[in-house]
Amino acid sequence: MKATAEIQVIPIGVGVSVRQYVKKAHETLAASGLNVQLHAFGTNVEGDLDDILAAVKRVHEVLHADGVVRVTSSVKIGTRTDKEPSLAAKLF
Amino acid sequence: MKATAEIQVIPIGVGVSVRQYVKKAHETLAASGLNVQLHAFGTNVEGDLDDILAAVKRVHEVLHADGVVRVTSSVKIGTRTDKEPSLAAKLF
Amino acid sequence: MKATAEIQVIPIGVGVSVRQYVKKAHETLAASGLNVQLHAFGTNVEGDLDDILAAVKRVHEVLHADGVVRVTSSVKIGTRTDKEPSLAAKLF
Amino acid sequence: MKATAEIQVIPIGVGVSVRQYVKKAHETLAASGLNVQLHAFGTNVEGDLDDILAAVKRVHEVLHADGVVRVTSSVKIGTRTDKEPSLAAKLF
Repeated sequence: MKATAEIQVIPIGVGVSVRQYVKKAHETLAASGLNVQLHAFGTNVEGDLDDILAAVKRVHEVLHADGVVRVTSSVKIGTRTDKEPSLAAKLF
Repeated sequence: MKATAEIQVIPIGVGVSVRQYVKKAHETLAASGLNVQLHAFGTNVEGDLDDILAAVKRVHEVLHADGVVRVTSSVKIGTRTDKEPSLAAKLF
Repeated sequence: MKATAEIQVIPIGVGVSVRQYVKKAHETLAASGLNVQLHAFGTNVEGDLDDILAAVKRVHEVLHADGVVRVTSSVKIGTRTDKEPSLAAKLF
Repeated sequence: MKATAEIQVIPIGVGVSVRQYVKKAHETLAASGLNVQLHAFGTNVEGDLDDILAAVKRVHEVLHADGVVRVTSSVKIGTRTDKEPSLAAKLF
């Protein structure tokens, strides 16, 4: 099942500046083979839902491996049966 | 990896009343074996992250099988390495 | 205009344990006169949309006054014209 | 108090295609004088928090005036006291 999604990650307990971890999260998503679009509040992705969910899990794992004690992610997922979901089709 | 999560589902294209589909989504999560807590804006769950992500996918599948053309979910996931995450510990 | 809403607050830069600030956020919402319902991923509220938005702003102000450098909130708002929105009606 | 925010709007009860309403929501935000950046999962904005919250309310009002029975919005707000928040600074 193909899906579009938005993934935002908030590392907790690593201080006020979280830039390096947010960057790492985005790179992890990009390395997963999904079509990714970075914006100021997260990364939009397009691809197979299984791959998207696996990438979300990997982001949590990678940040914990980098020493982040708490990781909170906010994920919005869109699926539809009338046509193939795409990020491009969500713009106007 | 254990996690806590909140799952909200919004069925699109089935009219103004979405109650039956939101109920179905909650029942799908409850049937997955996760610890679930229903509230007015979603279902909070606690369990293995793999099981949580599989349950999210199943919710999309079940609602599409019920005829919902578009399904949007909003999922918040929390993981931590210092202690086992739990819904109870998030209250005060 | 009456609305239902869910308000989740994530304080950033105050360490791994954010409990005292999340508690303060909930108390600020409760003190605003809105109908509030606490759960593990936030506080659900019901009331006038103006009052809800003012309370969200107050939460940011109060946490900053308590020394939190960065405050992120996630707010979901529901309004409808066919009947008065209520938290109770969102359960089944 | 200056803030950055992301605003996503989901019209419920107007059928499967919600494009015209999402476009209207974005235009309402843009017309509010805030700095806006459109992406596939919402509109990111930067400006005074009072103006942002007023714009969110206006989006609900405008869509209801256009005949949308139910409007759900998802708003993420970021404020900080160490420097002026900006959308540009959230990218890397």
